[in-house]
Amino acid sequence: MASYVVGIDFGTLSGRALVVRVEDGAELASAVHPFAHGVIDRTLGGEELPQGWALQDPEDYRDVLREAVPEAVRAAGVEPREVIGIGIDFTACTALPVLRDGTPLSQLPEFADRPHAYAKLWKHHAAQPYADQINELAVRRGEGWLGRYGGRISAEWQFAKGLQLLAEDPEIYARTDRWIEAADWITWQLAGVETRNVCTAGYKGILQDGRYPSSAYLSALDPDFAGFVTDKLAHPLSELGARAGGLTATAAAWTGLPEGIAVAVGNVDAHVTAPAVGALRPGQMLAVMGTSICHVMNGERLAELPGMCGVVQGGISPGLWGYEAGQSGVGDIFAWYVENCVPPSYHARARREGVDLHTLLSGLGAAQPVGAHGLVALDWHSGNRSVLADHDLTGVIVGQSLATRPEDTYWALMEATAFGTRTIIEAFESAGLPVTELVAAGGLIRNPYLMQLYSDVTRRPVATTAAEQGPALGAAIHAAVAAGAYPDIYRASEEMSAPRAAVYQPDTARADGYDALYGEYRRLHDYFGRGGNDVLHRLRARARRQAVIA
Amino acid sequence: MASYVVGIDFGTLSGRALVVRVEDGAELASAVHPFAHGVIDRTLGGEELPQGWALQDPEDYRDVLREAVPEAVRAAGVEPREVIGIGIDFTACTALPVLRDGTPLSQLPEFADRPHAYAKLWKHHAAQPYADQINELAVRRGEGWLGRYGGRISAEWQFAKGLQLLAEDPEIYARTDRWIEAADWITWQLAGVETRNVCTAGYKGILQDGRYPSSAYLSALDPDFAGFVTDKLAHPLSELGARAGGLTATAAAWTGLPEGIAVAVGNVDAHVTAPAVGALRPGQMLAVMGTSICHVMNGERLAELPGMCGVVQGGISPGLWGYEAGQSGVGDIFAWYVENCVPPSYHARARREGVDLHTLLSGLGAAQPVGAHGLVALDWHSGNRSVLADHDLTGVIVGQSLATRPEDTYWALMEATAFGTRTIIEAFESAGLPVTELVAAGGLIRNPYLMQLYSDVTRRPVATTAAEQGPALGAAIHAAVAAGAYPDIYRASEEMSAPRAAVYQPDTARADGYDALYGEYRRLHDYFGRGGNDVLHRLRARARRQAVIA
Repeated sequence: MASYVVGIDFGTLSGRALVVRVEDGAELASAVHPFAHGVIDRTLGGEELPQGWALQDPEDYRDVLREAVPEAVRAAGVEPREVIGIGIDFTACTALPVLRDGTPLSQLPEFADRPHAYAKLWKHHAAQPYADQINELAVRRGEGWLGRYGGRISAEWQFAKGLQLLAEDPEIYARTDRWIEAADWITWQLAGVETRNVCTAGYKGILQDGRYPSSAYLSALDPDFAGFVTDKLAHPLSELGARAGGLTATAAAWTGLPEGIAVAVGNVDAHVTAPAVGALRPGQMLAVMGTSICHVMNGERLAELPGMCGVVQGGISPGLWGYEAGQSGVGDIFAWYVENCVPPSYHARARREGVDLHTLLSGLGAAQPVGAHGLVALDWHSGNRSVLADHDLTGVIVGQSLATRPEDTYWALMEATAFGTRTIIEAFESAGLPVTELVAAGGLIRNPYLMQLYSDVTRRPVATTAAEQGPALGAAIHAAVAAGAYPDIYRASEEMSAPRAAVYQPDTARADGYDALYGEYRRLHDYFGRGGNDVLHRLRARARRQAVIA
Repeated sequence: MASYVVGIDFGTLSGRALVVRVEDGAELASAVHPFAHGVIDRTLGGEELPQGWALQDPEDYRDVLREAVPEAVRAAGVEPREVIGIGIDFTACTALPVLRDGTPLSQLPEFADRPHAYAKLWKHHAAQPYADQINELAVRRGEGWLGRYGGRISAEWQFAKGLQLLAEDPEIYARTDRWIEAADWITWQLAGVETRNVCTAGYKGILQDGRYPSSAYLSALDPDFAGFVTDKLAHPLSELGARAGGLTATAAAWTGLPEGIAVAVGNVDAHVTAPAVGALRPGQMLAVMGTSICHVMNGERLAELPGMCGVVQGGISPGLWGYEAGQSGVGDIFAWYVENCVPPSYHARARREGVDLHTLLSGLGAAQPVGAHGLVALDWHSGNRSVLADHDLTGVIVGQSLATRPEDTYWALMEATAFGTRTIIEAFESAGLPVTELVAAGGLIRNPYLMQLYSDVTRRPVATTAAEQGPALGAAIHAAVAAGAYPDIYRASEEMSAPRAAVYQPDTARADGYDALYGEYRRLHDYFGRGGNDVLHRLRARARRQAVIA
């Protein structure tokens, strides 16, 4: 008898359940349930939220269990009793304050109107001043863990969001028994027991070598923050692929799945995609390519790279060091360009040819010899995550003339993002972590011109995955391991990972041309990004001041 | 009885005749006659022309005398016998080979198909290799005249075009009795005698301190070029405003004007505009603002400015040193942007509001506080004439983000052109030539946002002229002087120049903001334009190589 697992991918606006055959990883059917409250970033209880806030209502997460799971199982045509395990992945860091029994504080009637009682979504950016404090103090005290995060703790992560909670709503902070990642909280709702997975604890908490930051450090931040770790975070850690517990009767009723089946510990969307696409070997860099790019790769040894997002032992799969880096703007730069910079004649032509503008522009750009457009750009329109870790940087374009056409600039922006990936690869290699192959997932892999470009620029094969739902498939693989169907994630990935849709090989002549353009990119990168000319920061600071005046 | 003069402005595609009242300079009526052959830049006699060629048929110039002049006189409702003089201005350097009697070589049947027999229009750029030879040799020999041209003789000018003629069609060169500016040639057609005006001889020839380059220099260029000056150029010079002669019977028949009336010596469109707009005093910088900007200003003393186009004694008006500088791309950058970089929603909005895109975008840009867009640009999309004199430079834009809107970038480009003008003003002032006021003419003065911007950025009043036909009015003023109605150009300009349409005064707060942005512009200007990073040249060279491959 065949057996199945369910993987649930919790995204920014919805959750998606996927039914997967354990034997070979076949993706049978999936169902999406949108979050009723979506992203709460304007008002809460009639009050306006300040800029940069992004909250969620955790009940929306539970609704995905009630709605999407049964629907996916029905659509897959499998018997619920054939399902042997369930696993999830989540956006991160998305964290919420809960009582000791897991009840979200937002569900206490007296806190229903208090923003700090809700889950803070990954893109809640209002904790930046607290992140600044965290970083300054860590530098001053020479905290060893800072190097594991490329020298900078993000405002998106657990400690910055927790410190904001303490500073801005101490009553809620005091009532918070547990400050928990949504990935771990939804797993708790399934298995009935609290677990903490090594992935979010490492990348989004500051857990390194088995320790969180010391209470001396925490009380130097704020005396009332001294117990943050011991009171609200500390818990035995669970390896990825481990069994969190058995599905509770309540969760069985929600999902329609058998009580007691294995629930896998939580994970993060990007990281869990690595086993789904078969990219667990050191040297195989997974690039999840969408509005931004998240790069994750396993390594055999520990290294500290300036500007990486984090390195966590077992952060992708047990026994290896999991590295994460990223580019903060990729697909969103292309979208911005198409929305703001393309004249009507190109819109008309795309309609005539029955293609979208991205396809039209990238096709025209790719048809040109390398450098024929005379341009080079810096892809910092949404800041730079790796390797500069500077969100106040902005874009640059050099070389436009009266002969520059829309496809020229679009293609130069595409090239710039590829140069950004190459910069990250070279940082890995400089740290002694060879990168031999790129495995690409995410929405941008549908653009073959972009994939070939990344191969040419990085001079490496770029494989695209055939997985339809990479993260949910990864969560399902974790479920299969938790259920004991495979001894570990590596074996499960071998049997269940999706095949490659295509492998792009570098064109040597174009790669030679790109070496020269990449040299220009790096010179401008260092000039504008490393203090040669701090004009980007000055312009941005002036724009912010002027926006206040306006 | 009132008396009148006719000024004729010979442009790139047509000639325009204007009838002006001598007493007060009132512009009564004008008429345009397009050149039947326009710009000959594709084929001649069925043969394709190489890239960069731009020829004209001189018979088209004579047609303007036959068609536009009588029509303008009729439209003005004046009696031809009330017309006391005629004057012209021309594009420059536009030069042609003629026989000793003034017959263009293109009108000899045996040369009708020979490109080199035709007039080479100002924008004929195919003589660049010859200009390079001229400059290299001048530097090597330490020719003193080079400093009078900012250190560089343009490929557009008389010597480069003449050397190209010798090198590429020696037979035509040998038959060329006179190598003459079209300004002087059309004056010859009116007055029946050859004259050479100091303006074109100085700015477009290389006549300085009464001397052309020596025959030693010329024969070092090419032994066969040694006699270029003595055989084909040399002629007594005529001051501006002088009488070239009386209108011949033939020209009287063409134009319908009285035989024998004064014909003024030729002049150049930009320079002749200075008396028309009342900008002859040292410190009054005339900016003729169209696709490019030409700056001309009188000075009391001689100075050599790096990157200026030229300084000529009496080049604008007798007794003063006439300075010329320029920005190679201004209105054409705005046109490129509107054509290539503005999305459909803005086109729709402009239609809805009944304005053109330039008005829409500049209005939105001007409404923002200085620097709120977070951008700074370099206005080199068409190269840089002054002060870098480098036509291989290209544009740069710095600071774009996902929040950058079309009006932001458009406004930053407008600012960049204003910074370009400020750079030129500062070069004049550094050389001891104060610039106290800008007087603006040309098509761009219709944009009040742009005018205010130039005033804010330069921190100087910007006056726009009310002249409808600035150059033609200037030519008419020269005609009035040649006819003896005024003792000199200064007096004639006082009485006949057009009033100011508006005077824009700098807004101190915005000027302060622009000081900071201008500082950013200059840093990038020197980095990209003076060797800090030669990336623009490398990108352009690569683009050219690749265009050959494609």
